[in-house]
Amino acid sequence: MSVSLDRVRELDRHDPLAGFKRRFTLPEGVLYLDGNSLGAQPLAAREAVAATLDQWRDDLIGGWNQGWFDAPERLGNRLAPVIGAREGEVVVSDNITLNLFKLLGYILERRGDGDGGAVLSEGGNFPTDGYIAQGFCRLGGVEHRVLPEGAELADHLDGVAVVVLSQVNYRTGRLRDMAATTRRVHEAGAEVIWDLAHSAGALPVDLAGSGARYAVGCTYKYLNGGPGAPGFLYVHRDHQDGGWQPLSGWHGHAAPFAFDADYAPAGDITRFRTGTHSALAYSALEASLSMWGDVDMAALREKSLALSALFRDCLADLFEAHGIEDITPPAAERGSQVSLVDADNGYAIVQALISRGVIGDYREPGLMRFGFTPLYLSFEDVWRAAMHFREVVESGEYREPRFHVRGAVT
Amino acid sequence: MSVSLDRVRELDRHDPLAGFKRRFTLPEGVLYLDGNSLGAQPLAAREAVAATLDQWRDDLIGGWNQGWFDAPERLGNRLAPVIGAREGEVVVSDNITLNLFKLLGYILERRGDGDGGAVLSEGGNFPTDGYIAQGFCRLGGVEHRVLPEGAELADHLDGVAVVVLSQVNYRTGRLRDMAATTRRVHEAGAEVIWDLAHSAGALPVDLAGSGARYAVGCTYKYLNGGPGAPGFLYVHRDHQDGGWQPLSGWHGHAAPFAFDADYAPAGDITRFRTGTHSALAYSALEASLSMWGDVDMAALREKSLALSALFRDCLADLFEAHGIEDITPPAAERGSQVSLVDADNGYAIVQALISRGVIGDYREPGLMRFGFTPLYLSFEDVWRAAMHFREVVESGEYREPRFHVRGAVT
Repeated sequence: MSVSLDRVRELDRHDPLAGFKRRFTLPEGVLYLDGNSLGAQPLAAREAVAATLDQWRDDLIGGWNQGWFDAPERLGNRLAPVIGAREGEVVVSDNITLNLFKLLGYILERRGDGDGGAVLSEGGNFPTDGYIAQGFCRLGGVEHRVLPEGAELADHLDGVAVVVLSQVNYRTGRLRDMAATTRRVHEAGAEVIWDLAHSAGALPVDLAGSGARYAVGCTYKYLNGGPGAPGFLYVHRDHQDGGWQPLSGWHGHAAPFAFDADYAPAGDITRFRTGTHSALAYSALEASLSMWGDVDMAALREKSLALSALFRDCLADLFEAHGIEDITPPAAERGSQVSLVDADNGYAIVQALISRGVIGDYREPGLMRFGFTPLYLSFEDVWRAAMHFREVVESGEYREPRFHVRGAVT
Repeated sequence: MSVSLDRVRELDRHDPLAGFKRRFTLPEGVLYLDGNSLGAQPLAAREAVAATLDQWRDDLIGGWNQGWFDAPERLGNRLAPVIGAREGEVVVSDNITLNLFKLLGYILERRGDGDGGAVLSEGGNFPTDGYIAQGFCRLGGVEHRVLPEGAELADHLDGVAVVVLSQVNYRTGRLRDMAATTRRVHEAGAEVIWDLAHSAGALPVDLAGSGARYAVGCTYKYLNGGPGAPGFLYVHRDHQDGGWQPLSGWHGHAAPFAFDADYAPAGDITRFRTGTHSALAYSALEASLSMWGDVDMAALREKSLALSALFRDCLADLFEAHGIEDITPPAAERGSQVSLVDADNGYAIVQALISRGVIGDYREPGLMRFGFTPLYLSFEDVWRAAMHFREVVESGEYREPRFHVRGAVT
């Protein structure tokens, strides 16, 4: 190792975020570099779920009057500062797929395009964003186009009404410039929906400051809301003044308990609610979100980049020697992950690491992803993970047949 | 009281379902007649959620390979026998609102109507069923019609492609004849989507035997899955052979982990999945569903009708004397609730009952609803609830000003 253990312990001693690790429970012997898929468990989430179980048992239907019903907007307001949004601009609801559908319908109705501009999806983005755009366009009679991976967005905006972009690409970890891109899309007369799945909680996001009007995201990755925790949806406050969203359920009605015969959308962000949501899932997320008020987002970003840099510094010579391609973008364009490609051995290396308790993940073809979550990873954790990576590759243990059996879904 | 306590205790001693009460936890001093809104907590649900919290903590992302990912179809198969469906015909997913949207899109695409038959909603049905039909039709360019409350369905099927009907009406508790109605709709060349919110777990439902092709429902009422537990969706196995559903997310893809650029719907019931679901919510429901294998549905129906009959028998003279209208349908057309109307005092009576620990609910205008859940209500419970009802009305205590302050949302 080119970096000594003493040095990384020194980094940990000066880490202003070090105290957050104690707010999570991680299993013994595990070095978890997959918080970009599912965040670790905050102690507070566990306690909150137990309290909600008590509430279901004791208050029964009364629980809906005691915090459950308003949770989508309350949690939205709690999440807002983490992503640069303001009170009343965020609602926690359903999942990314469904929230994209709602925004596509809302934006197109609001624009009232007679000529029906196209919906543009991003090639190489997480597939569900394109899938739901296809489903929306098929039903709504709207043209669907795909931006080829790596193509210049500005060259593909003619005739486009809405484009869906990820702020951080799930494979490469590349970070888009939200402000510049938003400006360019608006100048072309189109709207952009930002997918924050790999940026919310991973780095400072400045929705309002970037001029972004629409966004969606999930809460089970860097926000640690639990497996399958609900998604969120953001609409800039100047763009909440009209229009239906097509998934018009009773919780999004202007007066949900009036039981009117006709749908009338709520005048605010709650129009994006659909039906009854899980009080258990929301309580875990609410507790997880509660810690973000204490997080200095600039310190988070600094540590995130320092952790990914440490991992790469420890292994640069190994990558070179073993033909592992490091496609991690430079710091200014990096999310909070390191992405490595080894088409022949990537899968086996990740499996061998997992058997040592070092959890990363693998995506075809050849992509090894390692996520760096500053709230519960120490510099020493990352240093040790890099040490395991080196041993796995140098020893050739990944060549053992058991590491080559493919069957896992994640 | 016209029925003696000895008599109801005798009924409890001979109740074949009496043992199920021990599998639930209900708070001391509460008589809960609102299981038609939110079911009580099964002990098993609590334990299952704790186990899922352990799994999140210990297995982290690995949990998705250990039962979380397949939960929508596994729970669907567990639920199937309770509603007369078969393996592979039910998936647990999202909520009723969203599941209706999926089925409307799927059915219309499958029919390929050039002339675009209308969607018919039922006046007086739970509002979200009409709201989402409106949203669907607005986006899809489909005509939306409403069946006037009380009108003869057969007179309103001309030019209709799909009708959405509740098997049991949420206000009156009236039970439709599913087999006869389905036949009539099919004869008119239309399809029917059944909403089972107030029938699944409340009485024997025979989807396949009734010739029903499509249904949706929720699991937080008579199925006791917890607050906001996920919804379900049924498609008859002979009608799963094609077509998109418009909420085309990655979990409904034929190969969700291939990360293909284009959407291709799964060939089976899993096409109705959208995105990532809450493992916590699903685990509570799975445990709750586990008890249904032991339930004799004929005995459940018999007890349900006996409980509602007991409540009415105890109070018939009181209703007469105080001008309370009992709109509960006759047994053969009854769900599992008693519905009473008192436009002047209904709200205050329900509030006074709640303050005594007798939980029913109130819907404008004037409707008092009392749900009878055979798994955790004894005959003595119902008898005592009726005694409280009598005392509240005869004493006039509901006239106290504190019972007239309206503010609650449920």
